[in-house]
Amino acid sequence: MSTEKLPTRSENFSEWYNQVILRAEMADYSPVRGTMVVRPYGWTLWENIKDALDRRFKETGHVNAAFPLFIPMSFLEKEKEHVEGFSPELAVVTIGGGEKLEEPLVVRPTSETIIGYMYSKWIKSYRDLPVLINQWANVVRWEMRTRLFLRTMEFYWQEGHTAHATEAEAREETLRMLDVYTDFAINEAAVPVIPGRKSETEKFAGAVESYTIEAMMGDTRALQSGTSHFLGQNFAKAFDIQYLDTSNTLQYCWTTSWGLSTRFIGAIIMTHGDDQGLVMPPRLAPLQVVIVPIYRSDEERAKVMPVADQVFQALKGFRVKLDDRTEVTPGFKFNDWELRGVPLRIEIGPRDVEKGVVTAARRDIPGKAGKTALPIEGLAAQVDELLKTIQSALLERATAFRDAHISEPADYDGLKEAVKDGWVYVWWCGSKECEAKIKEDTRATTRCIPMNQPGGTGRCIHCGGEAHEKVYIARAY
Amino acid sequence: MSTEKLPTRSENFSEWYNQVILRAEMADYSPVRGTMVVRPYGWTLWENIKDALDRRFKETGHVNAAFPLFIPMSFLEKEKEHVEGFSPELAVVTIGGGEKLEEPLVVRPTSETIIGYMYSKWIKSYRDLPVLINQWANVVRWEMRTRLFLRTMEFYWQEGHTAHATEAEAREETLRMLDVYTDFAINEAAVPVIPGRKSETEKFAGAVESYTIEAMMGDTRALQSGTSHFLGQNFAKAFDIQYLDTSNTLQYCWTTSWGLSTRFIGAIIMTHGDDQGLVMPPRLAPLQVVIVPIYRSDEERAKVMPVADQVFQALKGFRVKLDDRTEVTPGFKFNDWELRGVPLRIEIGPRDVEKGVVTAARRDIPGKAGKTALPIEGLAAQVDELLKTIQSALLERATAFRDAHISEPADYDGLKEAVKDGWVYVWWCGSKECEAKIKEDTRATTRCIPMNQPGGTGRCIHCGGEAHEKVYIARAY
Repeated sequence: MSTEKLPTRSENFSEWYNQVILRAEMADYSPVRGTMVVRPYGWTLWENIKDALDRRFKETGHVNAAFPLFIPMSFLEKEKEHVEGFSPELAVVTIGGGEKLEEPLVVRPTSETIIGYMYSKWIKSYRDLPVLINQWANVVRWEMRTRLFLRTMEFYWQEGHTAHATEAEAREETLRMLDVYTDFAINEAAVPVIPGRKSETEKFAGAVESYTIEAMMGDTRALQSGTSHFLGQNFAKAFDIQYLDTSNTLQYCWTTSWGLSTRFIGAIIMTHGDDQGLVMPPRLAPLQVVIVPIYRSDEERAKVMPVADQVFQALKGFRVKLDDRTEVTPGFKFNDWELRGVPLRIEIGPRDVEKGVVTAARRDIPGKAGKTALPIEGLAAQVDELLKTIQSALLERATAFRDAHISEPADYDGLKEAVKDGWVYVWWCGSKECEAKIKEDTRATTRCIPMNQPGGTGRCIHCGGEAHEKVYIARAY
Repeated sequence: MSTEKLPTRSENFSEWYNQVILRAEMADYSPVRGTMVVRPYGWTLWENIKDALDRRFKETGHVNAAFPLFIPMSFLEKEKEHVEGFSPELAVVTIGGGEKLEEPLVVRPTSETIIGYMYSKWIKSYRDLPVLINQWANVVRWEMRTRLFLRTMEFYWQEGHTAHATEAEAREETLRMLDVYTDFAINEAAVPVIPGRKSETEKFAGAVESYTIEAMMGDTRALQSGTSHFLGQNFAKAFDIQYLDTSNTLQYCWTTSWGLSTRFIGAIIMTHGDDQGLVMPPRLAPLQVVIVPIYRSDEERAKVMPVADQVFQALKGFRVKLDDRTEVTPGFKFNDWELRGVPLRIEIGPRDVEKGVVTAARRDIPGKAGKTALPIEGLAAQVDELLKTIQSALLERATAFRDAHISEPADYDGLKEAVKDGWVYVWWCGSKECEAKIKEDTRATTRCIPMNQPGGTGRCIHCGGEAHEKVYIARAY
């Protein structure tokens, strides 16, 4: 651990973000420009995210599979908007086994095309539908400006790809998975996202409609944290995904796709982190509890360590670590685990041992206010309670912060001022021109048209024209 | 499911293998030459393999991480044997974001080099050691002749990479992971592998010593099913992985690597499969139990289905499916699930219902001999027992088959005859010349020098020279 002080978030949010990731050993830069190494502490967080999502995918009837990394260039070209959207970002394999390839292979930036091709082979009849497949995979997009987790050349994600007999079913699936993401973000990551529809400009290349969950980071900027796309029959027509319906007529399928990536780790860091470092939501935390024994002499050590071991055994049902390093002080350990965002620290000193208690210190409430003495008797149940309390407190705090930074300005000048340090929620006529002008003037973009609309009509914040929907606008990552 | 008959294993083992994979929907060919799509049924098997291995890795102190897919070409060149071994098999990215790259990027065929580079950054002192990291990843090797699961251009695996302070520790780790693989293969997959050391010719490019688990397939050919490498200081020197020891002297680390891939799925298929299709070992089976209701009238259906549902609920602790399709007959379902290798089928007909029993049919024992009536009362415990019995029976059968096909010929002519339909276990002088000549004469290769040696010396089966070790020789995949 570096001994230099971490930059504070108000000083330099961006540098705080980079430093906290590097110092907490979440990830590191790799020698290949724009790619990262996800270190064990970061990867364990991703594994926990995976488990929480995968469980939900399986509960909603999905199964996992694996499709190839390489996609023939010609596949991407079959869907016009898709290739336009992705071609500037492609990594291309031109040599294989020492020879120049006849057709270059694209390293998948997303897999609608190759999966569409396979679905056209597998789907024959209405009996084969719906097809509900997900894959956990790495994808590559050649990004110019990269940031650890937020935007890297290679990233890890899941991509769900489903095919349905009817438009209604496909639309239902699109929204079901948006709900799954929302539920995951709020209830597992304590990230109070706002679900909604993307504007035409912001939607996925090839989609009819894109939905998103948008999260507010600690600097008030927005982060698109997961997306679900209704693809209509665009890919079905490009790849001939057809089925015989009950009256033996050939029909095109309706497809969807949806994805959430390691970018979400960035969302967790920037939603909950503070000037001491990371703050991990207990349900996803790589480590939920760390035990730090405190002693100043061999005699005290002999008293404290057996109790620390006993507590460690009692807490085996949690993701727990006993920090028994002897070469560093308890103070060093406190800072170290605070930096890493472990939700609960259990301190055990000689006086605790005498009283039959431990001192529990909450990561989300610094200093004395976050400390409680807990009897060792029945400790596991109390720790469980405390972790739940921390989980709720994080969600409440993030929700309060979000709501305090969303405003509804009365006019365009108000918008320009408000997006400097928050989101605005405003009526918008829906025109690309107004959207583009707002972006040009403020660098803020439409984030989403939320599912819950006030109803009625209003006046567009930019042009004053009639508006039927309200939209969130913010500067975004 | 295709209605054509599956080729038998004795007719055409290779075609049986391909057909069983395609028909059971384990995998499919992809449009990119040499790559495959792993379909949900196959991927679920892989997920179960992953869980069983990952648990063992974590129990032995390892953690997971993720290293980049792309490796600078110059990295591979740093270890001479390594680049010689892998350069004919590389896929190379030469274009990124529309521009020609200054330095081409190799799609990882394995990750010793990039991980070595990162370890040299992370490891400073003896306190940082050992580093025990594993990753679950896709890798690419440009293979000319590919076979589903056995040899595909892209495959999925885990690769462990560890760094240690001493040679002894690194050697211990290499053998520990060989033990983990052996234990996994035997106790989870019921594949009775033989662990041993690879010959100089057969070892990993860049290793000092390679260890392997070798399995005998149903056609008696050998399959290398997992490998563990002691890398000495080769990669530590190539990548400057150094640490300060307790007396503050700079030392090179000792490293290991070990991997097991989706190839192991091929081992399971070819060890246990029969002329009806797959036979899945219960501990890894994607589906452990399938329930098939049997009725000929609506009246019978009304009697049977509630019991089938009740049984399904009672067996929820297993990976269980109730096959309630109405468009196909029970006979069709029997064949379908036999093809897919589900270890246990539960049939429920009107007469079963009257007697308060179900009929359990074991996949590993075809026909009446494998059927038992089980009381519905306390069914879960009986199913659990039966699955354990099937698991043991598969291991016993495979072990008996293996042992019946290993011989110890007295002379070289005997060897030439024996390797046509089995393995031989013979004294070998260790010379590359003898090894090469045996391969040339018989297409059989040294598979492994097993850990358990008889001791003493013998005469080389080929040259008659003094031999200190016995070796398994066989035709291999």
